[in-house]
Amino acid sequence: MKAANEAFYRAFRDRDVAAMERLWAERAPVACMHPGMTVVVGRAEVLRSWRGLLGHPQAPSLACSHVRVHVLGSSAYVTCLEGNEGQPPKLIATNVFTLEDGRWRLVHHQAGPLSPSSQPTEPEAPSEDPYRFN
Amino acid sequence: MKAANEAFYRAFRDRDVAAMERLWAERAPVACMHPGMTVVVGRAEVLRSWRGLLGHPQAPSLACSHVRVHVLGSSAYVTCLEGNEGQPPKLIATNVFTLEDGRWRLVHHQAGPLSPSSQPTEPEAPSEDPYRFN
Repeated sequence: MKAANEAFYRAFRDRDVAAMERLWAERAPVACMHPGMTVVVGRAEVLRSWRGLLGHPQAPSLACSHVRVHVLGSSAYVTCLEGNEGQPPKLIATNVFTLEDGRWRLVHHQAGPLSPSSQPTEPEAPSEDPYRFN
Repeated sequence: MKAANEAFYRAFRDRDVAAMERLWAERAPVACMHPGMTVVVGRAEVLRSWRGLLGHPQAPSLACSHVRVHVLGSSAYVTCLEGNEGQPPKLIATNVFTLEDGRWRLVHHQAGPLSPSSQPTEPEAPSEDPYRFN
């Protein structure tokens, strides 16, 4: 489960469109909310949005932290923070996954701004949920 | 499914803490991301955050539009826009539900700002997914 979330941020960082396409569900309903933007619905449209984003010369390279996995049977949602490496997180995100052919695949991503005044009060505790995507 | 989402916005609008408590799952893992804020985790903390928000004299009264339900077996996620009645939407939201004792219950809510330049290009089409919470 965490591996799938990790793979998502790796594809993001590496601007790996093919990996991104493999990550998203093929049959389950897919949607995506990029920061500030309205919702994108459907696999074709969502992947088009990612191709545009990953192909942009100023595409951000985000690290993911404070990852928590919340399992709901054969679906799950992950909550995490996103930010540039070595800097305070600037986005907060939800990633929803579902099992498809025994593999966790993304069905939804929402990221939105995290107020500078609302940073997590504690550093990420290794015992709680350690995770860096690289 | 839509009824559960509708009940969430009704509880929000009516500042009905008891209704809000009934809406959130009791056993499934619960989390919430209010706009700009970091994540709140666990039923007790999430409900505490809602009691604070609904008890605030300047609590917003949001209408919900452009609702789309995406079912993943015994879980589901809803995408929608939120805004003051009669005005353009100002927030974009994800609500995640799971079936608990045969009833759809909230497990996660994320709302974040919607850029004024990213309004939906088409008015809400009744044939697509009509919904107003009042």
